[in-house]
Amino acid sequence: MLAENRYGKSLVRVARLKRHADRNDFREWAVQILLRGDFATSYIDGDNSKVLPTDTMKNTVYFVAGHSQATCMEEFAMELIDFLLSRNPQVSEVEVGVVEKAWEPLEMSGVPHPTAFVQATGEMQNSKVSRARDAHFSVASGLDDLVILKTADSAFEGYIHDSLTTLPESSDRLLGTSLRASWTYGSSNPDFCAKRKAIRNVLLGTFAAHRSKSVQHTLYAMAAEVLKNVSEVEDVSLVMPNKHYLLADLSRFGQDNPNEIFVPTSEPHGYIEARVRR
Amino acid sequence: MLAENRYGKSLVRVARLKRHADRNDFREWAVQILLRGDFATSYIDGDNSKVLPTDTMKNTVYFVAGHSQATCMEEFAMELIDFLLSRNPQVSEVEVGVVEKAWEPLEMSGVPHPTAFVQATGEMQNSKVSRARDAHFSVASGLDDLVILKTADSAFEGYIHDSLTTLPESSDRLLGTSLRASWTYGSSNPDFCAKRKAIRNVLLGTFAAHRSKSVQHTLYAMAAEVLKNVSEVEDVSLVMPNKHYLLADLSRFGQDNPNEIFVPTSEPHGYIEARVRR
Amino acid sequence: MLAENRYGKSLVRVARLKRHADRNDFREWAVQILLRGDFATSYIDGDNSKVLPTDTMKNTVYFVAGHSQATCMEEFAMELIDFLLSRNPQVSEVEVGVVEKAWEPLEMSGVPHPTAFVQATGEMQNSKVSRARDAHFSVASGLDDLVILKTADSAFEGYIHDSLTTLPESSDRLLGTSLRASWTYGSSNPDFCAKRKAIRNVLLGTFAAHRSKSVQHTLYAMAAEVLKNVSEVEDVSLVMPNKHYLLADLSRFGQDNPNEIFVPTSEPHGYIEARVRR
Amino acid sequence: MLAENRYGKSLVRVARLKRHADRNDFREWAVQILLRGDFATSYIDGDNSKVLPTDTMKNTVYFVAGHSQATCMEEFAMELIDFLLSRNPQVSEVEVGVVEKAWEPLEMSGVPHPTAFVQATGEMQNSKVSRARDAHFSVASGLDDLVILKTADSAFEGYIHDSLTTLPESSDRLLGTSLRASWTYGSSNPDFCAKRKAIRNVLLGTFAAHRSKSVQHTLYAMAAEVLKNVSEVEDVSLVMPNKHYLLADLSRFGQDNPNEIFVPTSEPHGYIEARVRR
Repeated sequence: MLAENRYGKSLVRVARLKRHADRNDFREWAVQILLRGDFATSYIDGDNSKVLPTDTMKNTVYFVAGHSQATCMEEFAMELIDFLLSRNPQVSEVEVGVVEKAWEPLEMSGVPHPTAFVQATGEMQNSKVSRARDAHFSVASGLDDLVILKTADSAFEGYIHDSLTTLPESSDRLLGTSLRASWTYGSSNPDFCAKRKAIRNVLLGTFAAHRSKSVQHTLYAMAAEVLKNVSEVEDVSLVMPNKHYLLADLSRFGQDNPNEIFVPTSEPHGYIEARVRR
Repeated sequence: MLAENRYGKSLVRVARLKRHADRNDFREWAVQILLRGDFATSYIDGDNSKVLPTDTMKNTVYFVAGHSQATCMEEFAMELIDFLLSRNPQVSEVEVGVVEKAWEPLEMSGVPHPTAFVQATGEMQNSKVSRARDAHFSVASGLDDLVILKTADSAFEGYIHDSLTTLPESSDRLLGTSLRASWTYGSSNPDFCAKRKAIRNVLLGTFAAHRSKSVQHTLYAMAAEVLKNVSEVEDVSLVMPNKHYLLADLSRFGQDNPNEIFVPTSEPHGYIEARVRR
Repeated sequence: MLAENRYGKSLVRVARLKRHADRNDFREWAVQILLRGDFATSYIDGDNSKVLPTDTMKNTVYFVAGHSQATCMEEFAMELIDFLLSRNPQVSEVEVGVVEKAWEPLEMSGVPHPTAFVQATGEMQNSKVSRARDAHFSVASGLDDLVILKTADSAFEGYIHDSLTTLPESSDRLLGTSLRASWTYGSSNPDFCAKRKAIRNVLLGTFAAHRSKSVQHTLYAMAAEVLKNVSEVEDVSLVMPNKHYLLADLSRFGQDNPNEIFVPTSEPHGYIEARVRR
Repeated sequence: MLAENRYGKSLVRVARLKRHADRNDFREWAVQILLRGDFATSYIDGDNSKVLPTDTMKNTVYFVAGHSQATCMEEFAMELIDFLLSRNPQVSEVEVGVVEKAWEPLEMSGVPHPTAFVQATGEMQNSKVSRARDAHFSVASGLDDLVILKTADSAFEGYIHDSLTTLPESSDRLLGTSLRASWTYGSSNPDFCAKRKAIRNVLLGTFAAHRSKSVQHTLYAMAAEVLKNVSEVEDVSLVMPNKHYLLADLSRFGQDNPNEIFVPTSEPHGYIEARVRR
């Protein structure tokens, strides 16, 4: 029995250039479109009569981009969803995911260049927007691969000690992570680009300032501060792997290591996640 | 308000060598352990008194491996879960994910070498096992990155044509995918390694033999055949991206292309998924 | 002053299907073309009058594939080089690199399926062929990412001990590597596919059988055996990173570890390379 | 016959924290050490008596880091080379490669935080330093994965048109690349960190300002400007893949596309490289 199904197109890459008098704006997105609807016969009988080809979804991305009014990726996703629902009665719900490559103007001597850009970060901004027919949009925006580190105000003490414990307690350790965050908005349509910027600032500011007793402790503080500062946000989910920086054991070589030389490791790593809501 | 949380250790790599008279057995796993339980105070107050350090979870993997009776990864996951639940009353549920690197004996002139191995495939075997305290194990096994292709018996015709359609219909196209499959077992404890092998064979045999009218059509047939042939399986989830092989347009150069020369592409790609259950 | 330059097209992906009465043959290649020649003015003055666009090189790959007589990638590379040299007098030398995705027939109950294939390995077969105008072809074929492991007949003892030594000597350790090999042929044109298979077999057979005193020791034996067994080969270059499997220290937990439980690591790793010639 | 050989340790990751009154400095490097020398008997006979274990090289990185005076990676590489040559008479040449993860202070409201950092870019800074016994250091520094794009002042016209040409000429196209650069210094020891910054600025400034007639044209201009502006540099090698942004064909859907909507592609891509010297 067919319990669940969806299908669509992934990694549709599109870039949009807007020429202004004093500068160019440039956005680059990778779009995924997923449809749910009256498709059971395509699975069970190979009946394609209600199937919108994924190739046509790709064309849809470029066609809609050609006359899009969107500034932020969330708005472009909404345009795509409305377009697809309006033309395809067999579709009951559309989900659009967008990942943005972060192009920023090249700065020469502190001045942003008007037409040259640098992909200044490995960090990714993304959003997942969906709407069922006759329902409201559901918007979950986020970011991924934001690699951050604090070299002060981080401890890990007072945990369980048992026969398999080898970790020494530390009142002053490095705390590094590759942050993944997502947050949902209520039914309002805020200025998504401005809200994203504000949320990112709260996350980073809290990470930097927090007197951390554990990754869990800092993760919760970061999420709670977002809810406190950005009223449009309904809930916040954070994933913070603990990318360990182990103190190098130099005593074997007769050398002191006053918390200065570390061995960064990627395997294994801690994994902490939580969702915090109003 | 803390809505959900879990934490643990990822990418704990462990290899186990068993020496027999006539050959060695070698298994290599990457293990992830995730705990749920009475951890709210660690997030909210930084109280670590109930926190089992993730470093200790890493040690646990090696300690349990040292006297493990497990042959298949599913059994090792169960041993880890039982061990962690029995020693940590604050934990309400443990989830263990295992990914296996597929080492196979090197074949020399058709004879498997007793002590030399090759990682013969990029394909990954995996499993996710969990148990809440006082509950049964829940086992979802699977595989990922199984890259397959059929060069006959694949068509895609009769789909919707609208103003954005550019895809030509095809009664004979290549169908390539990178299969991700997972399936759940009922409460029984079958021979997990044997069942995995049987399920993989059914998936591949059906893919090869099916007269495909679409990816959806073949995906459903593959899942349905698993349910038909392997009684221990409760449901099957398949993800089959459509890794397109586009017919090269040689007519521009005055050359014929009788379905022989193709352009493999990775961006964009179709995405098809479904879950089929009894 | 312009000291050296070359340009071309990378990652031109092409697949070729040949339909036989009893089975299909399927090959998939990623091609790189690089040109050297009279191109200084394009760099210095922006004069494109002698520049063959890289887009045209891409088209060349498909056009030549459309009537290619090649079976092995080395032969296809030669066809491309001859075609480009014959049409572009400003080009003095063409280099073509090919990487093959290893598609093999799906085996159902030991029988190869005629039209279904599996990419059965992460291993890559490749070749780099070049020719200067009026000169012979130079052919360097190879393979990469062949991940192998031996669990017997491997030791590492008798090395230098100094104040920074912490590695224990071992008369019985695991030896794992990800082999990269390349070999050059003399001016003859052997059956490249058959020779590749023979060389791969010699490399693997020697790796499996060798009584290894170090990675260096085994690497040299493998290369020397190729030269001894395959007369068309002029020299062999091997790179063998030492992908360490560290013995897990279970004594901390009161447990014995009779060379059975290991910690696979990827960072850091040893790196051994050599070139062996007649 | 053993023609060439070298061995060593790769991916030795080390991080160094320096605490100052007003801020912390944090550097993270991945180090590779490669030795050449009197090692033929280790390959041919398995005689390890002159072999410095790669595990000891790893320890050397941490030991030397523990009392290092280096600020820039080039200086740390020199310290490692001197240390290894002085203790290992059988070694004739040491090569050290370093890749730096670019940690920068987190900026909160324009103010750099003293103890929190962000890995703000996917760009990599690197260096390769070598010295033969009784010879001078050879230093080649560079950067990789610097992803840049210009949306004005880029054309590609006047190239060869033949029977396989399909590329339309363009007087106004996007030019995107992922820059790889390396440059060598003469025998002097400049302030490597300051020179790196200056060179990077010249590369980016020239890329942004150049009236490009082709990738080749801009590549040469960038390299030539480095030589003109930074007297310590002997030669500059640049690799600039042409990461194509293809104009989306919206005319099929009755829509205009005045150079605004593009299809970014990664396969295939152009590949341009040159070395420019004084």
